[in-house]
Amino acid sequence: MLNVITPALWVSLGSNGPARIPLAMLVVFVSAKLMAEAAERLGQPGLVGEILAGVLIGPSVLGWIAPNELLSALADLGAMFLLFRVGLEVKSSELMKVGGVATLVACCGVAVPLLMGTALLIGWGAPAKEAVFVGASMVATSVGITAQTLSANGLLDAVASRIILAAAVIDDVLGLLVLAVVSSVTHGKVDFLQLGLTALAAVAFTAIVATWGTHAMGRVAPYLHARLKIAEAPFVMAMSLLFALSLAAVYTGVAAIVGAFLAGLALGESAGERERHLTQGLSELLVPFFLAGIGLHVDLSAFTHPGTAALAVLLLAAAVVSKFIGCGLGALPMGRANALRVGVGMIPRGEVGMIVAQMGLSFGVLSHASYAVVVFMSVATTVVAPALIKPAYGANERGGERLPEEAAALRAE
Amino acid sequence: MLNVITPALWVSLGSNGPARIPLAMLVVFVSAKLMAEAAERLGQPGLVGEILAGVLIGPSVLGWIAPNELLSALADLGAMFLLFRVGLEVKSSELMKVGGVATLVACCGVAVPLLMGTALLIGWGAPAKEAVFVGASMVATSVGITAQTLSANGLLDAVASRIILAAAVIDDVLGLLVLAVVSSVTHGKVDFLQLGLTALAAVAFTAIVATWGTHAMGRVAPYLHARLKIAEAPFVMAMSLLFALSLAAVYTGVAAIVGAFLAGLALGESAGERERHLTQGLSELLVPFFLAGIGLHVDLSAFTHPGTAALAVLLLAAAVVSKFIGCGLGALPMGRANALRVGVGMIPRGEVGMIVAQMGLSFGVLSHASYAVVVFMSVATTVVAPALIKPAYGANERGGERLPEEAAALRAE
Repeated sequence: MLNVITPALWVSLGSNGPARIPLAMLVVFVSAKLMAEAAERLGQPGLVGEILAGVLIGPSVLGWIAPNELLSALADLGAMFLLFRVGLEVKSSELMKVGGVATLVACCGVAVPLLMGTALLIGWGAPAKEAVFVGASMVATSVGITAQTLSANGLLDAVASRIILAAAVIDDVLGLLVLAVVSSVTHGKVDFLQLGLTALAAVAFTAIVATWGTHAMGRVAPYLHARLKIAEAPFVMAMSLLFALSLAAVYTGVAAIVGAFLAGLALGESAGERERHLTQGLSELLVPFFLAGIGLHVDLSAFTHPGTAALAVLLLAAAVVSKFIGCGLGALPMGRANALRVGVGMIPRGEVGMIVAQMGLSFGVLSHASYAVVVFMSVATTVVAPALIKPAYGANERGGERLPEEAAALRAE
Repeated sequence: MLNVITPALWVSLGSNGPARIPLAMLVVFVSAKLMAEAAERLGQPGLVGEILAGVLIGPSVLGWIAPNELLSALADLGAMFLLFRVGLEVKSSELMKVGGVATLVACCGVAVPLLMGTALLIGWGAPAKEAVFVGASMVATSVGITAQTLSANGLLDAVASRIILAAAVIDDVLGLLVLAVVSSVTHGKVDFLQLGLTALAAVAFTAIVATWGTHAMGRVAPYLHARLKIAEAPFVMAMSLLFALSLAAVYTGVAAIVGAFLAGLALGESAGERERHLTQGLSELLVPFFLAGIGLHVDLSAFTHPGTAALAVLLLAAAVVSKFIGCGLGALPMGRANALRVGVGMIPRGEVGMIVAQMGLSFGVLSHASYAVVVFMSVATTVVAPALIKPAYGANERGGERLPEEAAALRAE
């Protein structure tokens, strides 16, 4: 922890004093941005630097700061604003076009890692329950990391990017179901009715908002904007929708960030320049907290045991290979170049794997060593992927291969 | 508290589940904006609606939400971004021009409320220590509320507005000293050396940053912007300065928001359109949490006792009259119209009075009834002031009376 002399009277106010908030903001934000600058200078994506900044200032290395309620709230908000912003940049009609392939990508991308992760842990001698939980932690892609990489490189328009985004949303729903099944099995009873209802709610919410959200907002937004007297009414409307859909997403069983993405998608066509600028300010400030927050959870001390370190390396390899193969196979109908991009783009696990690991720990199913290994896998896949995504998209950065209909439409113009 | 059925598995994660953050954001932000809309339709300033939204959803009325760590952190950040944005809009050279009058305004505006509040409580039969603490809680103006009102009405350019901003910053330093003396007296010993050092640090920090900050940033900012490789480097620099000066302010003894204001002031001339837009997004989202957060602390149940209610009304009257007279007298050299504006503009106590009250409660000096009365006074002055500020500025909204030099400069053009 930081030890700074606190001379003033005001510092003694409150539980940790009024220095707490500016201190936390300064330490996390500035470290993340300094490391991003270092990463950029080494030719790496800035977000890798920001995640590593979290590892560096976290309990494992410098110990300046530990995960706490404020930082995790800022991290959650950061992830929400990141996905909201990505949603704003994507057209829902274009996501719908790739819906079939994306579903295939998501399904293969869930099955292969689950099986490979479980098999690896059983081969390593872990109990079956623990093995299945580790497998489940490898299922869900962190769309945030991929979205940030694609967005930062101006690649969101490419067909492969749309497949990745749609597949990552579907994959979140599937991941929820896998987790529900795994934890029911862990607790010894499976309630198929409950599982079915959860699945139905999650699928219905996502499908309805994705399908009709844009149309509904296109009609509601201009009506309300014209009638509201408060300043910045379109921005206020956008934020209200963001929080409402994030909350609805949680209640229907998917992650808040899926709701945030759907809110962005719904507003994609009605949002003006002004709301986009204002939203960018929020994501520019908060996303570093999301990224550094991922790094903060790494516990390097577990890897002093050589067995744990070896397992971590093997699990990382399995996580990379299984998602690449699973998702790449699913995307093969779109051509080899797109299959490569999709396979690489789905690799990052980020915060999703860590949430599953935390659950496993609290259920007493995961040992502390397996927990550390899963967290390492989540962070390492996240750090590795951006470096692979850029070359996978190659020189033809803006667009990649087009869909047949699009190519036809372009020729007709 | 909100009771919502939590059907999904994900909701059971974490201490209060992943619904906690979007739920808190949605409830506070949407309530604040709905009440702001209602206030605007009734011809009142939006911020009054946002404060009253906090009272409404808080423990006293609907009980939907209670003050908690997350909300108070968002409120603190909201106040910081509000003052940062105001600082960006004001030129430090123009604040310096009104420095003499502002010092006079601040001194009279501290002395009169302190004496009047103490006298009222002694007349009411309170112990001397309690009376002095209540007086001390009436000393410091909440520059945030006034700044928001002035900014929302495009009045920041007026001479009176510059006097108010400069006086509110000086008043924060004086308020710190009064509080330090009062709490030393309460604890039975006064360390004059310590008080002197605190005063010196606070004055030196404020004066140095206000005087040389703009010049320093004018030289450093372009140098760094040209060399940094990360995206949005000017915004990153601005945020880093904001958090660094807020933290430095706390360590030197003044409030974090004074540091935030000085950071804005320092960047006022070098900041481009892009940083201003991005910063506005942050203040648009976070300021409602600051305003509603003030309302959340009101405890109406204390006023079922008629004596407490009567004292609250008297203290509110004393708080309004004493600041109006004290600050108005101080500003009289600038003409009667400006004296009126300054007198009214310095009335809101907002969060500052509440912090002092909380300290008094924790020291055992304030009774629960006096605490409730001081919080009521802080909120009520804040709600009353914006309604007075607009008429005080009259029809001539953009500029008010100009300084003699300015008027001469305008004529020369």
